[in-house]
Amino acid sequence: MSKKIAITDKVMDGKYLERIKQVAGKYGYEAVMAVTEEEKALHIPEAEIIHGYGDKVLKGATECLKWLCASSAGTDWFINSDIRPKHEVLLSNCSGAYGVAVSEHAVMLFLQLLKREPEYNEIIRKRVFKNDLWAGSVYQSKVTILGTGDLGLCLAERLKGFGPKQIVGVNRSGNNPGGAFDKIITQEEVESILPETDALMICLPGTAETKGFVNLERMQLMPSHSVIVNVGRGNVVVQDDIIKALTEGIIKAAALDVYEKEPFDADNPLFDCPNLLMTPHCAGNMVMDYTVERVCEIFCEDLENYFNGRPLKHAVELSVGY
Amino acid sequence: MSKKIAITDKVMDGKYLERIKQVAGKYGYEAVMAVTEEEKALHIPEAEIIHGYGDKVLKGATECLKWLCASSAGTDWFINSDIRPKHEVLLSNCSGAYGVAVSEHAVMLFLQLLKREPEYNEIIRKRVFKNDLWAGSVYQSKVTILGTGDLGLCLAERLKGFGPKQIVGVNRSGNNPGGAFDKIITQEEVESILPETDALMICLPGTAETKGFVNLERMQLMPSHSVIVNVGRGNVVVQDDIIKALTEGIIKAAALDVYEKEPFDADNPLFDCPNLLMTPHCAGNMVMDYTVERVCEIFCEDLENYFNGRPLKHAVELSVGY
Repeated sequence: MSKKIAITDKVMDGKYLERIKQVAGKYGYEAVMAVTEEEKALHIPEAEIIHGYGDKVLKGATECLKWLCASSAGTDWFINSDIRPKHEVLLSNCSGAYGVAVSEHAVMLFLQLLKREPEYNEIIRKRVFKNDLWAGSVYQSKVTILGTGDLGLCLAERLKGFGPKQIVGVNRSGNNPGGAFDKIITQEEVESILPETDALMICLPGTAETKGFVNLERMQLMPSHSVIVNVGRGNVVVQDDIIKALTEGIIKAAALDVYEKEPFDADNPLFDCPNLLMTPHCAGNMVMDYTVERVCEIFCEDLENYFNGRPLKHAVELSVGY
Repeated sequence: MSKKIAITDKVMDGKYLERIKQVAGKYGYEAVMAVTEEEKALHIPEAEIIHGYGDKVLKGATECLKWLCASSAGTDWFINSDIRPKHEVLLSNCSGAYGVAVSEHAVMLFLQLLKREPEYNEIIRKRVFKNDLWAGSVYQSKVTILGTGDLGLCLAERLKGFGPKQIVGVNRSGNNPGGAFDKIITQEEVESILPETDALMICLPGTAETKGFVNLERMQLMPSHSVIVNVGRGNVVVQDDIIKALTEGIIKAAALDVYEKEPFDADNPLFDCPNLLMTPHCAGNMVMDYTVERVCEIFCEDLENYFNGRPLKHAVELSVGY
């Protein structure tokens, strides 16, 4: 055992690193920042534990590596990685750290679509006082949330206060995770709820099973006044299909924070798609005090589990993808 | 008595007019649309009751006019009008119709400031994938809401679901209207809460008392990371002062839907003010099904009161302004 922990997110430096060092020190482990190329070259090959985001953090990893703790909630980037080590590595995530940030962002995008904010933005740019665009409301609307994990739960809770007519959650099991959902259906039943959906909020992880889940056929089942918001993973929505749906008025508007291809290119056809609001996958970055706080907490909790030979609380089931 | 009711908002035509006609008909009154110049010239001089927004609807009104029902919540435009009739006229409003629409808009503006949406909007316009701006959250933040009427109440209820640290309401009486407020203080005590305020949400009507309530002196009491959102009336915030506060970093950012002068001119200095998000007084227009529905309901309810010699439920106290 090398007893080295490499922390690869710059934002974890300072008080968070100190907290990790405190836990690690108790068990004779050393925690170091591995952010710059020099630091990475020095520490990654010796790391028994890596904490970070994106499969580039695995570059140079050796047989020493026993556990990768993703600082993100999604671990599709590890599962689909070409450079991940050949030997078996424990995988965990920081699911539970992002629900607050991402659900707030999702509510914002949803409200921006309802309140015609992109059009008002243009109006303000022209310095014109025009204010008669017809608006929608969360109040009395029928919301369907794909995914009832941390994100979906946080989102349902926030939308509940707006008085929607119903919040239906869609998941694999059909089990109700509690919280603010009025009803839960399974993903096999999703087509029954789409015609009754004013807003489809996508909070799904990127897995083999969720890839392309929202396609043209399904969008065609939705009312023409409906909107789609995706804050889960980009490849859940078929990009060509949503462009077609928005261009032809099959649905009214959409907001995306995540994309099939990230980073997107400047010539991505989405930039010329009508009625589409975009943000650059910023909803759930480690750019909020609470998020970084929780990421650190979750990692420290699993460090204790790891050092004491207990199963990781945030272990990811590779076959499922989360 | 002329027994004529003039309805001046175009959006009230159709099913809403029919509903008003049903009530009016029972008492021998006639309800007519008075939207075009011709219709106004024909009906306003004969109207015993006028329903609508903006003091221009009073142009041509005669001694026949007994009651003006403002389709808006605010009635400052009537109280400050130069052309309002000299004789005494009953005044009522449609307070209670706009809380849903305006509070949703306010949450959107608040989230846009926290999530750096104006900056991300610029980033997306440049087709760049940059997503590392530090963000804030409603979660664990300290929110102060000026005004605890319909708007303030609806807003508190919606923000509650986001898990803020506290929601403090500020009103004239200090009485708690119930709902989601953690605490109520009087307007005389407002300066004690400003240093403890991460977000100041303004839901005040435009009255002699609220004019200039949010001035430079008070903004200087707020933390430099704090934000202001105004969805109440424009003259509650001193325009020159908020420009100074934003320019000098006294507060971090602001969002305005209402302005000292409306419609604003293209050369309004707000357009060149940093860290300011603007919408063109669109939060509480009659541009939402539910809003128009409620405006119609409230008016019909008071029509019954009027015809039966009962006090109007939504009567406005002229001396207070709402």
